[in-house]
Amino acid sequence: MQFQPQAADLSGVQAMEWCGSSLRLLDQRRLPEEGNWVECQDAVQVAEAIRTGVVQGAAAVGIAAAYGIALAARRIGQAQDWTAALEADFALLSAARPSAANLRWALRMLRERLRRPLGVAANIPELLAQAAISIHVSDREANLAMGKLGMQVIRRHDRQPQNMLTFGNAGALAGGGYGSALGVIRAAHAAGLVAELHACETRPGRAGQRTLWELTQDELPVKLHVDAAAGHLMKSENLSWVVVGAEYIAANGDVVSAIGTYALAILAMHHGLRFMVVAPSSSVDLSLETADEVDLGQPSPGQGGQQLFDVTPADLIDVIVTEKGIVERPDQPRLAELLSHRRLH
Amino acid sequence: MQFQPQAADLSGVQAMEWCGSSLRLLDQRRLPEEGNWVECQDAVQVAEAIRTGVVQGAAAVGIAAAYGIALAARRIGQAQDWTAALEADFALLSAARPSAANLRWALRMLRERLRRPLGVAANIPELLAQAAISIHVSDREANLAMGKLGMQVIRRHDRQPQNMLTFGNAGALAGGGYGSALGVIRAAHAAGLVAELHACETRPGRAGQRTLWELTQDELPVKLHVDAAAGHLMKSENLSWVVVGAEYIAANGDVVSAIGTYALAILAMHHGLRFMVVAPSSSVDLSLETADEVDLGQPSPGQGGQQLFDVTPADLIDVIVTEKGIVERPDQPRLAELLSHRRLH
Repeated sequence: MQFQPQAADLSGVQAMEWCGSSLRLLDQRRLPEEGNWVECQDAVQVAEAIRTGVVQGAAAVGIAAAYGIALAARRIGQAQDWTAALEADFALLSAARPSAANLRWALRMLRERLRRPLGVAANIPELLAQAAISIHVSDREANLAMGKLGMQVIRRHDRQPQNMLTFGNAGALAGGGYGSALGVIRAAHAAGLVAELHACETRPGRAGQRTLWELTQDELPVKLHVDAAAGHLMKSENLSWVVVGAEYIAANGDVVSAIGTYALAILAMHHGLRFMVVAPSSSVDLSLETADEVDLGQPSPGQGGQQLFDVTPADLIDVIVTEKGIVERPDQPRLAELLSHRRLH
Repeated sequence: MQFQPQAADLSGVQAMEWCGSSLRLLDQRRLPEEGNWVECQDAVQVAEAIRTGVVQGAAAVGIAAAYGIALAARRIGQAQDWTAALEADFALLSAARPSAANLRWALRMLRERLRRPLGVAANIPELLAQAAISIHVSDREANLAMGKLGMQVIRRHDRQPQNMLTFGNAGALAGGGYGSALGVIRAAHAAGLVAELHACETRPGRAGQRTLWELTQDELPVKLHVDAAAGHLMKSENLSWVVVGAEYIAANGDVVSAIGTYALAILAMHHGLRFMVVAPSSSVDLSLETADEVDLGQPSPGQGGQQLFDVTPADLIDVIVTEKGIVERPDQPRLAELLSHRRLH
């Protein structure tokens, strides 16, 4: 990927901050009312933060888990067999949010780092911290790349400012920074392509409140609506795009995302709106033929026993944007082709 | 209408109670946590209760307003020109919820009562109280009739127990008792036609909480879901009917109802579910060609600036059930024919 992050691109809202001996997490449960930070010193605290929703969003959870392993290694200090020494921490972090593909992916990256030849004098805690930082930076870079690609798709359809709708919080808070769906919206806004942006509350998790908060910090105006208003908005507000994130993408292009995304895709089709899903390639799981195979998770007691995810079938999606490129009218061959090689932009 | 109310039919949850010199209203803002009653002694207090949401639902608001006029007349005691004496109270109650068709209809009924020849010795406050009671009883009877008609429509399609979805609170709490949409569900349940009933929260008004409360009182089991879950439920729960109420019905069959009803109707069509609207004939306004002419009201500051209603076009509706009969595939001629005469059931 030839993409170079620029200093200005690293600004904006951040979900977490790596301090070397601790990980500071913005407590997303308290937003928008309070902007408290939670400081984690070890993997147990990071797992607890993931489990209780201090950190939200598939990518952010993966990055936080990677830092959790780095903190665990730092506490252990020295070991003969690092994989064995960290086994309990890997298990704990992996179980903190079983539905997150990026979480498993990030932990797999750190396990692979341990399997590579390590010098005799290697500082393993430091190597793992570097690996976690690298996952963090890569996610931010991927978001910047997706923002640009998604913006280009929008611009290709229309060079006039558009009214858009987003759902959930596929934003800077949900990953390494800048945002996936909100990254596209930020890039489109910077390119003069956003007239009005609407966001849904996204009950029961209320991720829309975080979207409102984060875009307001960046002075990007957004109107928040109850989820039930989406159909009426599409009829009355002259929308042209729905832009959302994803928790998971199956090999055929089915998308697992915040519950309500499926209904939104049907409503978008009914009203002739284009539907864009923005997610890093690490969200795509080619081992899943369709998303119907995905365990959507038990309804969460912490959210009043409500289901948190649903499946949007690929045939309702106009375009999937990843950092490796875009896939229009996604299906199994097109997604496989995208992921089969490193594309150059 | 040959329908005769039976003692058993008058049981169940009630939104209000007429006490002769006062009107007791169940405070619906506090449900389901608290079941407080608010006692109104005059029209000012009734108007305040309507304005602040103590009483909810188009029909219930109309009935409460009629009792408000009866209370006002009782306080005035004697007058030469009752229409003039009550003018301020009529205006106050009419302005308490400008969007409610039934409110205007109920007040018009009381005005017409005053225009009819009054005996020299007539006790006008008593006559107006009788007129209000008559509106209240008629609404309950209409709900019982609609319940039976709607149940018959469901039974005609399938004699097996069905999974159903409702939205808002078109229940006993929203009118004179028994409920419009929930009346159909009660009658269908009594006839063994309901397997599982699902209800949506219906943000921002949270009418679904009142539906949950009222059906639980009557031991009719219901599962409450976030609004965004509706699409996922239709795909995964084998639903066959969506049954909702209405605030207004235009001459062409367009329906104004709680915001989200429009999206639900599109989702129902997409999933091959049947969509039933249940509302008394007093909700139909033949002077409105289409519901697009209806002022949906300004977003309510009390509900976080959210729009409270949307328009469901007639072509998304399979059947409208009124106490005068049913209209399948509603349009202007069919609705006009239904309302043109008193049908006998």
